[in-house]
Amino acid sequence: MPDQASAVTPDIISTLLQVSTATIATQLHRRGIRAVFMVGVGPLDRSNARFAGPARTLRYIPAREDLDTPEGYGDPLHPQRVAIECLSRGDVLVIDARGDRSSGVLGSILTTRIRVRGAVAVVTDGAVRDAGAIRATGLPTHAGGAAAPLSIHSHHAIDFDIPVACGGVAVYPGDVLVGDEDGVICIPAGLVGEIAAAAYEQESLESFITTSIAEGASLIGSYPPSPELRAIYEAQRAREA
Amino acid sequence: MPDQASAVTPDIISTLLQVSTATIATQLHRRGIRAVFMVGVGPLDRSNARFAGPARTLRYIPAREDLDTPEGYGDPLHPQRVAIECLSRGDVLVIDARGDRSSGVLGSILTTRIRVRGAVAVVTDGAVRDAGAIRATGLPTHAGGAAAPLSIHSHHAIDFDIPVACGGVAVYPGDVLVGDEDGVICIPAGLVGEIAAAAYEQESLESFITTSIAEGASLIGSYPPSPELRAIYEAQRAREA
Amino acid sequence: MPDQASAVTPDIISTLLQVSTATIATQLHRRGIRAVFMVGVGPLDRSNARFAGPARTLRYIPAREDLDTPEGYGDPLHPQRVAIECLSRGDVLVIDARGDRSSGVLGSILTTRIRVRGAVAVVTDGAVRDAGAIRATGLPTHAGGAAAPLSIHSHHAIDFDIPVACGGVAVYPGDVLVGDEDGVICIPAGLVGEIAAAAYEQESLESFITTSIAEGASLIGSYPPSPELRAIYEAQRAREA
Amino acid sequence: MPDQASAVTPDIISTLLQVSTATIATQLHRRGIRAVFMVGVGPLDRSNARFAGPARTLRYIPAREDLDTPEGYGDPLHPQRVAIECLSRGDVLVIDARGDRSSGVLGSILTTRIRVRGAVAVVTDGAVRDAGAIRATGLPTHAGGAAAPLSIHSHHAIDFDIPVACGGVAVYPGDVLVGDEDGVICIPAGLVGEIAAAAYEQESLESFITTSIAEGASLIGSYPPSPELRAIYEAQRAREA
Amino acid sequence: MPDQASAVTPDIISTLLQVSTATIATQLHRRGIRAVFMVGVGPLDRSNARFAGPARTLRYIPAREDLDTPEGYGDPLHPQRVAIECLSRGDVLVIDARGDRSSGVLGSILTTRIRVRGAVAVVTDGAVRDAGAIRATGLPTHAGGAAAPLSIHSHHAIDFDIPVACGGVAVYPGDVLVGDEDGVICIPAGLVGEIAAAAYEQESLESFITTSIAEGASLIGSYPPSPELRAIYEAQRAREA
Amino acid sequence: MPDQASAVTPDIISTLLQVSTATIATQLHRRGIRAVFMVGVGPLDRSNARFAGPARTLRYIPAREDLDTPEGYGDPLHPQRVAIECLSRGDVLVIDARGDRSSGVLGSILTTRIRVRGAVAVVTDGAVRDAGAIRATGLPTHAGGAAAPLSIHSHHAIDFDIPVACGGVAVYPGDVLVGDEDGVICIPAGLVGEIAAAAYEQESLESFITTSIAEGASLIGSYPPSPELRAIYEAQRAREA
Repeated sequence: MPDQASAVTPDIISTLLQVSTATIATQLHRRGIRAVFMVGVGPLDRSNARFAGPARTLRYIPAREDLDTPEGYGDPLHPQRVAIECLSRGDVLVIDARGDRSSGVLGSILTTRIRVRGAVAVVTDGAVRDAGAIRATGLPTHAGGAAAPLSIHSHHAIDFDIPVACGGVAVYPGDVLVGDEDGVICIPAGLVGEIAAAAYEQESLESFITTSIAEGASLIGSYPPSPELRAIYEAQRAREA
Repeated sequence: MPDQASAVTPDIISTLLQVSTATIATQLHRRGIRAVFMVGVGPLDRSNARFAGPARTLRYIPAREDLDTPEGYGDPLHPQRVAIECLSRGDVLVIDARGDRSSGVLGSILTTRIRVRGAVAVVTDGAVRDAGAIRATGLPTHAGGAAAPLSIHSHHAIDFDIPVACGGVAVYPGDVLVGDEDGVICIPAGLVGEIAAAAYEQESLESFITTSIAEGASLIGSYPPSPELRAIYEAQRAREA
Repeated sequence: MPDQASAVTPDIISTLLQVSTATIATQLHRRGIRAVFMVGVGPLDRSNARFAGPARTLRYIPAREDLDTPEGYGDPLHPQRVAIECLSRGDVLVIDARGDRSSGVLGSILTTRIRVRGAVAVVTDGAVRDAGAIRATGLPTHAGGAAAPLSIHSHHAIDFDIPVACGGVAVYPGDVLVGDEDGVICIPAGLVGEIAAAAYEQESLESFITTSIAEGASLIGSYPPSPELRAIYEAQRAREA
Repeated sequence: MPDQASAVTPDIISTLLQVSTATIATQLHRRGIRAVFMVGVGPLDRSNARFAGPARTLRYIPAREDLDTPEGYGDPLHPQRVAIECLSRGDVLVIDARGDRSSGVLGSILTTRIRVRGAVAVVTDGAVRDAGAIRATGLPTHAGGAAAPLSIHSHHAIDFDIPVACGGVAVYPGDVLVGDEDGVICIPAGLVGEIAAAAYEQESLESFITTSIAEGASLIGSYPPSPELRAIYEAQRAREA
Repeated sequence: MPDQASAVTPDIISTLLQVSTATIATQLHRRGIRAVFMVGVGPLDRSNARFAGPARTLRYIPAREDLDTPEGYGDPLHPQRVAIECLSRGDVLVIDARGDRSSGVLGSILTTRIRVRGAVAVVTDGAVRDAGAIRATGLPTHAGGAAAPLSIHSHHAIDFDIPVACGGVAVYPGDVLVGDEDGVICIPAGLVGEIAAAAYEQESLESFITTSIAEGASLIGSYPPSPELRAIYEAQRAREA
Repeated sequence: MPDQASAVTPDIISTLLQVSTATIATQLHRRGIRAVFMVGVGPLDRSNARFAGPARTLRYIPAREDLDTPEGYGDPLHPQRVAIECLSRGDVLVIDARGDRSSGVLGSILTTRIRVRGAVAVVTDGAVRDAGAIRATGLPTHAGGAAAPLSIHSHHAIDFDIPVACGGVAVYPGDVLVGDEDGVICIPAGLVGEIAAAAYEQESLESFITTSIAEGASLIGSYPPSPELRAIYEAQRAREA
């Protein structure tokens, strides 16, 4: 998996930042990959929803009163803190919170640190706390909602950098997560380059089709495009190249 | 029903665009009609939520892997495409998606075509895909959410222009749907003119009451209005006429 | 309880308006109080979410067709109307709607009156109707959503100023409710002053920590702060005093 | 209401024990009363589901850690204990638990006492604890499920003999609750005698129709019965009288 | 589709009655067909859950007060009645009720008629009413629950013998439904014979494996079977043939 | 933790098999431990619900089509198979299935092997498949339901013997799970002996109280017991010792 992940070049990330999660979903579906879009997870701020980067995972299990006390929270080896300190530039921190939105998985101080470390997004199927302050940090954040209680109200950070579930999707460390206004999609590590290229091609064609439809063309013959329309597109494309 | 629908004049639509779904709900409730407000359906863009027009229906059932493949999607007789090509100016396309929000019932290309055909809104209890691009088209859209997967991930368009369910409400073709920030309400075809007129009257009175309350009047005597207050209102109304 | 409530001074309310519900949740959690944050309740307008004030309660039970008719709604002794007319300046009206969002617990006329009476917020686990008009009144409103049907569609106002449930939280008249973008938290009447002071202290320290982290400090040693960092903070705090 | 309640004679209760909740629902629906069947509430033991009797209500709100401690539970004036000690022979205890099933509203010791006091059923939209032992007491019990945690885990008994909500239904003290395998229906106090008589008549006719259909008659002409079939029924009925 | 359906011989039905829905699910999964098991639908009586037969569909949409009155229910052309009168021996009646369990889709009189007509099961994602009486008819019934209110409380029968959704599964008339204690699975019409044969083979092998494991064999080598174990099985199978 | 687990003697297990999960919940609540009862998990067969034993954990994440194929299922190192082969006599296998009930976490063949290995129960917040056959094995099984699809329809077994979440409860390997008709409770490893003893004492007292109440005593003075009643109990207890 490390080899695959290393293949995720800045160019690929740059391409992924130009295509929609809808297009990526179509490309994955064509390859038989369907269980990749997170349900119940959306952008905290839809004007700052877009991101792409490799997943770094953090797993929470339910809290229990004998183990999860405000005191224990100060442990410097607390997996939540260590995971954040291990983030690299460009990473996306994804937190498996079992869809439990009764407390926040993190707040604005940790988000500030995540940003400073160069991570590009936080994704969780739990809630975040102090959502207004998190939005103000400018870090794209996709979550199941907002909730004021601190994480130990219902969560116990247990381990990181292992495969997790988030929003009904398996996320393996090194998979690439992409977000936009629709939410978050997970691209399996080995397919990232292929999907990025195909998605870019698809959007180029769809942009051409959209223009045609905006000018009055019927869906029949345009979407999907007839051989004739596709030939016109290919010719135009060739001229631009 | 065609006769009733033909009775929905531009004046009536124009009146409906000036009243709230809350007022329409009150008028329908007074006539014993209660099961008309869609649950779990809301505007994609609350600053562009308002619309009114006759319903054109499209029904989805669950997808099945042997029938719903990307290839089959290109069929020019696909009910989704035909339904859209059959839309008339002023129509509202309502899609029965069984409340399933795991994929988008349509995306921005189809929305562009819907807009070009002159339809005034899309309503669904499913999700839409590429929500940012749909918002950018400017077409009022009320949905259950946003989701990147393409419709065949979970839907199969099966037929159109038949009675459907949407958001827990029966919608018969020709019923008039009205939307605002609260969501979408369905007015039975035969009641549209009566409801529009009564709603307009109600809002005129309520506007008078609101002014009175904003100036310090107690609810007691104002809302509902006492005979005295109502007489003042009627007199003022008569002067304005 | 009256004595305790009278201890909620304007200074305390003023302090509570400067701290987040997240910080208040932490302080209550430290004292063993956890069941205080409302689930499924959020601001209608996140740019106008902040408020603090003592709770005045109103309880709804389900409507029944023989009792809940548009006519009965005009009763001047209707508990909904009386409760609103009994509101004092600074109060927060909290409506126990059993989490039922199929109709609106109130609309813009009543909200206008609530505002005129000087109440500072409306909180409910039900929906509100005519949400756009309610937002326009400027009164901070936290609800479970928006719905056009009038309250008697599903609710019957039964009594007020008794302990109620809202969003899974017990609210006793006189408890202090605080809202921000995360939602609404309930501070038991007897703890309000203590919590306000402690929350203010905590935010002062966290602001110091956030600055430190924004400047590049690691979480380890900063959050929670090491004895050294805390000493620096205390020294700085002392200088400012 | 006391007068109405006193009109619920043993004969009426005896009649109600012979008819189904389905038939009662039909009779109430014909009179425009629809919001009367509890959703999410069912018999703990479907072979011991049947009961009928006037409602005695008990209301729970959420627990809060400062108020709901094992110690406080011993208060002899605890509303849960007092409510049970106030039960009369033939009563049905209905507990409004807000549909919260994370703890049990009562267990087998209280159920034993309820039985000794002569109550005929317990109904709640919460859970019960020690469900096996409760079933063994033989008291018909309809609940939202079973859960081991004690009531103060999530509940605080606050008052009794006031109108409550249970399973989405308003229950006023003195309304008559009837249960069978389908669940629990609430008959408004003033309609009990009328509904009992009409339901008995309906079942008599339906029994005749069922025999006819079991012998091969088509639905058309039988259900609803044609004038001819109804005449045969009336004649047979007259002979039996 | 008629041709395919005619290929569902009594032998195939007989075979399907001997295999579990779990085995059928495995065989369909191997052929890439996954969206076939109904969610939220289970046997009313787990000791009478087993059935197999071709689907006859009936579609409900939400009721509306102006259209769905007790009087209209007597219409001899009511689709619910006509659909039942059109059932043939061996059919399974499947009712699309949108998962709405607030009323019963049918009761014991209709079930009696369904049985007399020779249908072998009723399947719905709604509720049934008078569940005790339905169980007593002996007709295998799979539903989403039990509810006393009559169907027009929330449903309007609109059409039959068209493709429908039930429990999240597309059911096309002529598909074969099979039920057991786990619930109901739908076999596409064109695959019925193939799936029945393959499922029978699979269960024969699994029975052999289960015996081996019950006698102490490890999973490793047994499940899935090693080439050696499979050879022993094939030899034994050959001897029995 | 191994040391603590080794302290779970057969005598303790034997005691736990005599007390209810309700009593255990009370004892844990008195010690401040509340998040221990699984929500949405219940016995497949309520007449065979009782068990007690140390937890062995297995974690599932969502399936993904590229990784979870019927072929891969045959891998002898599949964590599901290895976990089962590692079970010891007396163990309880608990499977974290994220509450996803769209497929079965295991079926009757694996259950047969689990039984042969001497495990005493299976617990999961997912579904089981071929529930009838699993019940027939006689192994106490608590699950979220039954579903025919095979586990790879929605699950991927990823690791075992690590802390997991099940039914909203943290389960650490070595914690002791106890089940009865109410469902499943988790006792932290370090408290097992203490809780078993205290629960046994509590049930002894409650049995005495129940007898008293069954004979007509009021709750007031009996439950909780007055000093006088408790003295009588203590005396009787002493005589029996």
